[in-house]
Amino acid sequence: MADGVAGPEARELAAEIVRRLTETGQTVAAAESLTGGLVAAALTDVPGSSSAFRGGVVAYATELKASVLGVDCGLLDEHGPVYGPVAAAMAEGVRKRLDATIGLSTTGVAGPGPADGFPPGTVHIAVSLDDDTVVRTMALTGNRDEVRRLAVERALGLLLGRLREERA
Amino acid sequence: MADGVAGPEARELAAEIVRRLTETGQTVAAAESLTGGLVAAALTDVPGSSSAFRGGVVAYATELKASVLGVDCGLLDEHGPVYGPVAAAMAEGVRKRLDATIGLSTTGVAGPGPADGFPPGTVHIAVSLDDDTVVRTMALTGNRDEVRRLAVERALGLLLGRLREERA
Repeated sequence: MADGVAGPEARELAAEIVRRLTETGQTVAAAESLTGGLVAAALTDVPGSSSAFRGGVVAYATELKASVLGVDCGLLDEHGPVYGPVAAAMAEGVRKRLDATIGLSTTGVAGPGPADGFPPGTVHIAVSLDDDTVVRTMALTGNRDEVRRLAVERALGLLLGRLREERA
Repeated sequence: MADGVAGPEARELAAEIVRRLTETGQTVAAAESLTGGLVAAALTDVPGSSSAFRGGVVAYATELKASVLGVDCGLLDEHGPVYGPVAAAMAEGVRKRLDATIGLSTTGVAGPGPADGFPPGTVHIAVSLDDDTVVRTMALTGNRDEVRRLAVERALGLLLGRLREERA
């Protein structure tokens, strides 16, 4: 962590996100499962991030996705936490509960073993912004650290992509 | 982040914490301000941490300390977020709201500049366990990254110290 907590890729994405949000007066909140706080850590790594980053919820235990983020229990019971619509509901829930203009979420399997019936590297990320929510599903490869790091980069990348679209 | 997200010191503390909690059936939840998700990230860096780590709240915006963690508004209004009793209330609040047996919290000033009337490195951490809450206040030195990293290590160290006391 000598050069900060995030890798160079995540640092660059986070800095650009904070810059854009600050310029436009938007704010983001993060709901994380497999990334366990790393998305929040990457964003708060940027000096001055407090104007753009509201905060986050690390909902590691599945039931916290319902009790803290408001994800529908039926959805979790039927499909488990590793599911695209759960990522969408997490992003929408954290946006609402933490009173941010944008919600960002991650859920999936970091490894080393499979979980909830899915192999390590199965990851869903979502961004809730304006009147829509986009979910991206991916199969990442690598060990636990690599899967977590890649999931952070993809989540920040998805958010930055949406912010760029908005300005286009 | 090639060797995980936490430095070697935090990794070692986190692994020992997860091992002890798993053995005793206890669980921890984290409420973070200046560390911005790094305490949660260090704990979830440990494979198998899902049995011991419930989740966390990154309450970066001051009002989230009240709305999400239940910290008394009067306390925040009168003293601001960089205050020992706020750290205590954050640890107690996250323990209760995330239904964990232990709450761990951090609040303070990462820098680079002063905030809320305190110089960078002013940090309060707290552990709520059984019927008591311990708060430790410190003046850390270093840049923003170093202050955040040291605060994570001190928070994990305070928790591990309490766990060792319990077993003694």
